[in-house]
Amino acid sequence: MSQEIHGYWSAPALGEWMRRVFEAMGCSVEDAATAAEVLLEADLKGIDSHGVARLPGYVRLWRKGRINPRPVWRWEQRMPAVAVLDADAGLGLVAARVAMDRAVEMAAVYGTAQVLVRNSNHFGIASEHALRAVPHGMVGWAMTNASPLVAPYGSSERLFGTNPLCYAFPAGRRDPMVIDMATSAAANGKLELAAARSQAIPEGWAVDAQGRTTTDPLILQNGGALLPLGSNPAGGVHKGYGLGALVDWWSGVLSGASFGPWVPPFVDFLEPAPDQPGPGLGHALGATAIEALMPLEEYNRRVERWAERILAAETAPGQPPLLLHGMPEWESRARRLEQGIPYTEARNRSLRNLALELGLDTIDESPPNLR
Amino acid sequence: MSQEIHGYWSAPALGEWMRRVFEAMGCSVEDAATAAEVLLEADLKGIDSHGVARLPGYVRLWRKGRINPRPVWRWEQRMPAVAVLDADAGLGLVAARVAMDRAVEMAAVYGTAQVLVRNSNHFGIASEHALRAVPHGMVGWAMTNASPLVAPYGSSERLFGTNPLCYAFPAGRRDPMVIDMATSAAANGKLELAAARSQAIPEGWAVDAQGRTTTDPLILQNGGALLPLGSNPAGGVHKGYGLGALVDWWSGVLSGASFGPWVPPFVDFLEPAPDQPGPGLGHALGATAIEALMPLEEYNRRVERWAERILAAETAPGQPPLLLHGMPEWESRARRLEQGIPYTEARNRSLRNLALELGLDTIDESPPNLR
Repeated sequence: MSQEIHGYWSAPALGEWMRRVFEAMGCSVEDAATAAEVLLEADLKGIDSHGVARLPGYVRLWRKGRINPRPVWRWEQRMPAVAVLDADAGLGLVAARVAMDRAVEMAAVYGTAQVLVRNSNHFGIASEHALRAVPHGMVGWAMTNASPLVAPYGSSERLFGTNPLCYAFPAGRRDPMVIDMATSAAANGKLELAAARSQAIPEGWAVDAQGRTTTDPLILQNGGALLPLGSNPAGGVHKGYGLGALVDWWSGVLSGASFGPWVPPFVDFLEPAPDQPGPGLGHALGATAIEALMPLEEYNRRVERWAERILAAETAPGQPPLLLHGMPEWESRARRLEQGIPYTEARNRSLRNLALELGLDTIDESPPNLR
Repeated sequence: MSQEIHGYWSAPALGEWMRRVFEAMGCSVEDAATAAEVLLEADLKGIDSHGVARLPGYVRLWRKGRINPRPVWRWEQRMPAVAVLDADAGLGLVAARVAMDRAVEMAAVYGTAQVLVRNSNHFGIASEHALRAVPHGMVGWAMTNASPLVAPYGSSERLFGTNPLCYAFPAGRRDPMVIDMATSAAANGKLELAAARSQAIPEGWAVDAQGRTTTDPLILQNGGALLPLGSNPAGGVHKGYGLGALVDWWSGVLSGASFGPWVPPFVDFLEPAPDQPGPGLGHALGATAIEALMPLEEYNRRVERWAERILAAETAPGQPPLLLHGMPEWESRARRLEQGIPYTEARNRSLRNLALELGLDTIDESPPNLR
């Protein structure tokens, strides 16, 4: 699979086309716009694995009846600052936003709040949800469990997903600081990239079907599994195992969703395991109001001082200056808004086929800098 | 320094003696009992670096006037479910417990709550605070920033502490599941152990004063620094850098305490840096009531299913069964309650000197199994 850039789509054209795909699935106008916006943010921020690349997968799950395009949100609220959303098998892209906005509303009253989601699907990039809190002067967070791909060190079984966790902090005059990380040592996309380049992967990323260390980039297609962050006992792999479990406890066990190895697969050709502990994927979102702690201006001065100190840090010989958290993604976003979103020939072909299948026009390919 | 076991103290005898040390510092009867209890839990759980081993350090900081034995807690509450505690330079061991108990009280009303602490000192093992939530049917968490020892990959400067984060989840009939991890690849104590054995440390734990990888276990005494979890770019070191920052943002930036490289050193022979961004260390504690999400019995069934599935996981050739989170510490606790807490000759001598200095009896050394 060639990774060569074949052309560029403008962000508005790509977003508009994705919106029409979600409408063709039967989503409401509003939900289709939200879902397209969440995917587009991934493409803008350079997280290419989580943007339009996932769209054909969502369509396939919808065709299988595993994504409900017209969900009815069901809320449960047993205490003032915590709520649970049953997403009715709808798009996680939309359910997580709805949940986050509710967390922000509650945090504005109580200072901090959490919303857990069950019966959901993949929610895209976590940061797009966590960041909803920031314009309200709040810290936001978002986690999700995911299809099992990770084997705890010493096991040969896929027991967790890459279970990402994300925190977004306002940073005064700077772009918000964002931590958005899979709790595995490497994400699946890094193995795909190595495979496309016929390169071995470093030890510590994956094991084979017997749980032995491997450098084969295609090992996931052959029954292998990813390793948790830390990779091995000397590297602190029990910490990555702990973080993956933590995300599963919040998102799955506490929400009422499925969890662990039972989490339904993202691919349509694998059926969910029988005897599910709960419906669909689960997410955990939350927000804390900075004004609950100190005046926002005081926080801004403090966080800017933090950021400036990091940027001024001494570096080791031959090393570039330190980056702030989320900086590469903000830089990609600015660049791609200007230059457009690059695509490969394979991606273009796959989306043309999707357009044909759904009876839609293809993505408008006039040069991005004309829009 | 020999690591050989010289004898055993019974837990009650060690706890009682530590309580008298804190009373000799001028702490109230209640605060001295709390501080001793928190340290004793570390010794029981096998986290030997954080128990009685730290007591001489606390005494030295008290003599320097950097620990206030009679603090007046000052509370700030701007919104219902979030509070800030100014610990008045008191013992973090006590302040964090007071803060956690307040978080539990608020979470019982609102479903979730947070308490941040500033103007504090080292709080011992995080799990002892997070676990306070569990008997109330709650998830608890605890984080703290700490004296700078960690250089983000590519830098030669100590910009963060080992900044631990901890989450404690009830687990039905089982021991609570606990994640309590430094956000560095390895804790300081592992380097000390390697040094005592004259062993090289693995690559990925530490860098020298110029920021270059090293295997020298004594590098921290020579201007070196620890590396974040992940160790290097292939291992995902940006994730450990993110987690270390996250703990600092919650504990330091948001609490009003000091943060980053300014966090006051634990050792008495280094003065805190001038131009502090805030007073003392900071902690972040919180609790979420499970009953805010589902009936506790339902949660217990779900979490027990999760735990049983992990314990039944297939293992790779030659690997032992997977452990649940916190299991080694619970096993150590049961064993040491029975057999006593082992000590080396060096530790015994250091505590005898401390007793002499404070005019106290030494630790009662009658055999532990007689109590």
